Amino acid sequence: MSSRRDFIKKTGLIGIAGIVQPLNVFASSPKLNGHVHYKKENTKWADGSRLVVSVSMQFEAGGQPVNAESPFPQNMQKGFVDLPGETWYQYGYKEGIPRMLDNWDKLGIKVTSHMVGSAVLKNPALAKEIVERGHEAAAHGMDWTTEYSMPYETEKKFIKDGADAIKKVTGFTPIGYNANWLRRGANTLEILQELGFKYHIDDLSRDEPFLVKVKGKEFAVVPYTIRCNDIVLIEGKNFSADQFIRQVKMEFDQLYQESEKKRRQMSISFHDRIGGTPQMVAATTEIINYIKQHKEISFKRKDEIAQMAYDEKSVIREF
Amino acid sequence: MSSRRDFIKKTGLIGIAGIVQPLNVFASSPKLNGHVHYKKENTKWADGSRLVVSVSMQFEAGGQPVNAESPFPQNMQKGFVDLPGETWYQYGYKEGIPRMLDNWDKLGIKVTSHMVGSAVLKNPALAKEIVERGHEAAAHGMDWTTEYSMPYETEKKFIKDGADAIKKVTGFTPIGYNANWLRRGANTLEILQELGFKYHIDDLSRDEPFLVKVKGKEFAVVPYTIRCNDIVLIEGKNFSADQFIRQVKMEFDQLYQESEKKRRQMSISFHDRIGGTPQMVAATTEIINYIKQHKEISFKRKDEIAQMAYDEKSVIREF
Amino acid sequence: MSSRRDFIKKTGLIGIAGIVQPLNVFASSPKLNGHVHYKKENTKWADGSRLVVSVSMQFEAGGQPVNAESPFPQNMQKGFVDLPGETWYQYGYKEGIPRMLDNWDKLGIKVTSHMVGSAVLKNPALAKEIVERGHEAAAHGMDWTTEYSMPYETEKKFIKDGADAIKKVTGFTPIGYNANWLRRGANTLEILQELGFKYHIDDLSRDEPFLVKVKGKEFAVVPYTIRCNDIVLIEGKNFSADQFIRQVKMEFDQLYQESEKKRRQMSISFHDRIGGTPQMVAATTEIINYIKQHKEISFKRKDEIAQMAYDEKSVIREF
Amino acid sequence: MSSRRDFIKKTGLIGIAGIVQPLNVFASSPKLNGHVHYKKENTKWADGSRLVVSVSMQFEAGGQPVNAESPFPQNMQKGFVDLPGETWYQYGYKEGIPRMLDNWDKLGIKVTSHMVGSAVLKNPALAKEIVERGHEAAAHGMDWTTEYSMPYETEKKFIKDGADAIKKVTGFTPIGYNANWLRRGANTLEILQELGFKYHIDDLSRDEPFLVKVKGKEFAVVPYTIRCNDIVLIEGKNFSADQFIRQVKMEFDQLYQESEKKRRQMSISFHDRIGGTPQMVAATTEIINYIKQHKEISFKRKDEIAQMAYDEKSVIREF
Repeated sequence: MSSRRDFIKKTGLIGIAGIVQPLNVFASSPKLNGHVHYKKENTKWADGSRLVVSVSMQFEAGGQPVNAESPFPQNMQKGFVDLPGETWYQYGYKEGIPRMLDNWDKLGIKVTSHMVGSAVLKNPALAKEIVERGHEAAAHGMDWTTEYSMPYETEKKFIKDGADAIKKVTGFTPIGYNANWLRRGANTLEILQELGFKYHIDDLSRDEPFLVKVKGKEFAVVPYTIRCNDIVLIEGKNFSADQFIRQVKMEFDQLYQESEKKRRQMSISFHDRIGGTPQMVAATTEIINYIKQHKEISFKRKDEIAQMAYDEKSVIREF
Repeated sequence: MSSRRDFIKKTGLIGIAGIVQPLNVFASSPKLNGHVHYKKENTKWADGSRLVVSVSMQFEAGGQPVNAESPFPQNMQKGFVDLPGETWYQYGYKEGIPRMLDNWDKLGIKVTSHMVGSAVLKNPALAKEIVERGHEAAAHGMDWTTEYSMPYETEKKFIKDGADAIKKVTGFTPIGYNANWLRRGANTLEILQELGFKYHIDDLSRDEPFLVKVKGKEFAVVPYTIRCNDIVLIEGKNFSADQFIRQVKMEFDQLYQESEKKRRQMSISFHDRIGGTPQMVAATTEIINYIKQHKEISFKRKDEIAQMAYDEKSVIREF
Repeated sequence: MSSRRDFIKKTGLIGIAGIVQPLNVFASSPKLNGHVHYKKENTKWADGSRLVVSVSMQFEAGGQPVNAESPFPQNMQKGFVDLPGETWYQYGYKEGIPRMLDNWDKLGIKVTSHMVGSAVLKNPALAKEIVERGHEAAAHGMDWTTEYSMPYETEKKFIKDGADAIKKVTGFTPIGYNANWLRRGANTLEILQELGFKYHIDDLSRDEPFLVKVKGKEFAVVPYTIRCNDIVLIEGKNFSADQFIRQVKMEFDQLYQESEKKRRQMSISFHDRIGGTPQMVAATTEIINYIKQHKEISFKRKDEIAQMAYDEKSVIREF
Repeated sequence: MSSRRDFIKKTGLIGIAGIVQPLNVFASSPKLNGHVHYKKENTKWADGSRLVVSVSMQFEAGGQPVNAESPFPQNMQKGFVDLPGETWYQYGYKEGIPRMLDNWDKLGIKVTSHMVGSAVLKNPALAKEIVERGHEAAAHGMDWTTEYSMPYETEKKFIKDGADAIKKVTGFTPIGYNANWLRRGANTLEILQELGFKYHIDDLSRDEPFLVKVKGKEFAVVPYTIRCNDIVLIEGKNFSADQFIRQVKMEFDQLYQESEKKRRQMSISFHDRIGGTPQMVAATTEIINYIKQHKEISFKRKDEIAQMAYDEKSVIREF
């Protein structure tokens, strides 16, 4: 079996620099440009693992707008409230998060909880409990408002308000960010940097963390996924919980195999009212226990992964 | 393995009352407000079971409006009747309910049948047979009209007419209610209380029954589900019957495990023309037989569960 | 295990005639009204089988209109032809029907082929071959035009033209009918009777054949299904071929079990360009071979089933 | 077991030429008409295989228009860029193609890469690497513009520009063509012939290659599929990766069995940002390894299959 790098070496492509692609990946963001510097291939992270697995737990329910999208038909007559839709969201904080918290303890892993500010204010004790039990609180906007089209100062206040709510309620200063539907705008990274954030996750482009340059300074990207994501697969694609198990296991199998030659990151994501149902927690348990049977893997919060990215000399730098 | 309560005790959160959340779950219902009083953790229901399983059988076919939604394309030219669509509904009372009735007997369980008034009047002998065979008749509106936007008196008559039809035909006085598409309005609970109903099911927020306060009096909620529901999964999400089996088993597995430490309720739901097909009755048989292999579980009608909620001192009171 | 009939006998419902329901199943068809006379329970068909399985093979491709619905996006600019969509249909007669024909021989079963007139004229040799190999030719309209809204004489010519095309090309006089999308109109049954047809399939209401009365004369209904139907499950619901296998097996299992006490019919349906693909023929083979392992089942063409319905004294008569 | 040909021989249909169907398959294309000459049945390709399997790897990401369709909601406000959507496409060239390239080497097969001109210019080194590692570069248009409605000269330039980009960057002269969404226009085949192309794939009508006549000269068709196609099944039909495995294996099983009596071709297709994910590469590995366990199969690039079609005297000629 020849690897891609073996081939490049054999054909001398590296020698002629042909493999350095002018990716210009931030063409759509006027503030970021530059060249891609490929990392050397390293097979281990600083903690000795080949594959680092990062689990997200979105804490959003309770902070949603009236008549927010739910499994019920989106056809409410004007002036009326979708009451069963509201109870669908209530499930997120009454059953979902508590169930997942117990499960993380049982499984022995720590996760990153992306917290919407308005949800934190609605259920402060639960937000506090998440942090007290050892999980990371990351910011996820002040509420569910579309972020990418906000003017600069509006967006800055929107992000700061959400982070302040988390800090005030939980005592945890968030350094990671996730925009609504991953839809950051052209200014978002610069704002995050100004506010002291250290990483964002709204990027699907790689199976490992990397660094970009924002106004001349490095900023970490801890990539997210929609392939192992409950809201996309269960609510969006109508997978059954057992399909979720099989697909995520297949994802792991391939990344684990690749990690023999190359450091890898895997991301899995759960939302309070979806990933917190009994059937999905059963699925999660099976997935995590499957992964844990393998050697040289580790479960990390995203703040830990971001720090690893900053500390690794050989990390991918997309600038 | 540490449980959530263990954690709370250890960190002293209960001591500082931080865990009592100002849920304000009825914010959208101007008539209901108040505080949440969390139950003490009890692990058994009054009958000695840890997990009570409640099966619903919707009796709606025959009472649907002309050209009601069906698997056929919703594109009929004006003035014509969707004849194959009608036969799809007829299946519900010609094959579906009779097949399910035989199956409940074979499986040895009693269910709650949510009966639409117009369907009861269309097929009175079948409605009567459901009750005669030991199942609960619960009300489900007089017909398929959208309920949440009705004025108070209109809605009261609508609910009463449906309940009266059931009483007249079957001799059973319904005390439980299910609104069309679960969409109760702001007045529904008060009307139900006035009419003598004891519980409703249009709430997805918990995996156990609870009490709310309606005009100063307790009213029981026996939560429903859309995760183990044939109309949502088979017609809405396009699950195959075997996916339904696997997902409901996973739901049971998790709730059963949780019930070691905490009383739980599981809800499964079938509609006449969907859950009554051969493939779905085969699925149901496999699911129920699977559940029955476990100790300390019981199958209960929803009127029995509501009564357990009223009788339990430690039940969740959301007021 | 008590059966539904046992219960009825025990509770004396039959004695008080309470079980005779005023079904009025043809309320939407002004020409047909009357009472339902329930059959006595018989457990065997005339050929000794308990469960008769009927397979349909739609022969439609080649007769479709320009830019007919296909898996390709329905967004063609005006004045252009969807060429890949056309090749999707061509597959039906170039690969699909020939493959299925070989498979029916291999499996040793005869099927009913519902033939669109325009498709027959497009590929006459193939239509002829279907009949020559022992399968039934049933009529399916002259082309893909919506039938339910045609005036009486227009519809009569439409049905007759299609049947005449089949007769002329194959030598087989069709006595069975299937309307486009099952959507017969209020006049269809009367027209069919006038034209000498003996049965139609556009009814989903039962898992066994039955008789209705059309202008005072009996007319057979051989019910169709959308639960074991490739166009509904594969194209409509996006099932994978293995889901199709599992769901149809579950359907069989339940009907087979019921057939211990009650005669049953099972219907399975395949369309040229869908059921004729390699993956679906592989699925079909597995399903048919599974069914064949059971005793007291038979595979019958729908004309045979209609005849059995006419011959059975105890058949369901919905009039 | 009797085969279709056995039947035809027995009934003498060939003798009366009844089986020669006036297919007129290019009725919608005014430039091509004629008769179908059926091939004699041959059971082996020139290389001794009964079944030739052809894998496609679409190279499109990076060349897509702004706010191209992606798994994210298609609801961007005007004037804003869908940044997470862009990262979904970036995955195609940063992870997807490199991962698939390593996998083809590991599996020991060569594939056909359908390259969009704009994608090639965006990532020239990667395009070059595909060719250097032994895969075929086929043309796929200059960019993602809808092709079927272009005037003749516009379309000719569009096709030529894409082919020139491939030739310039990779050194490989493409002789195969795939139109956007398979939607060639009425002039496409004539243009391809003028430009020196030898085959196209935008046809789903057969499970084997065949020849058509374009302006009096033979032109090869190497049929494509949407049944074993990641963009159709994973993105379009929402299959999980394991469903993809099972469906493609079933497709193979049937074609392999048929190939005992008749030469067959099987097509499987992967797109950079979809088929290149870990879960889909895991699926691909399982599928290819499964196929490789069978004797008398071969994996071929589509240029090789087109050449086999030209060289086979008994190939299907649809003219």
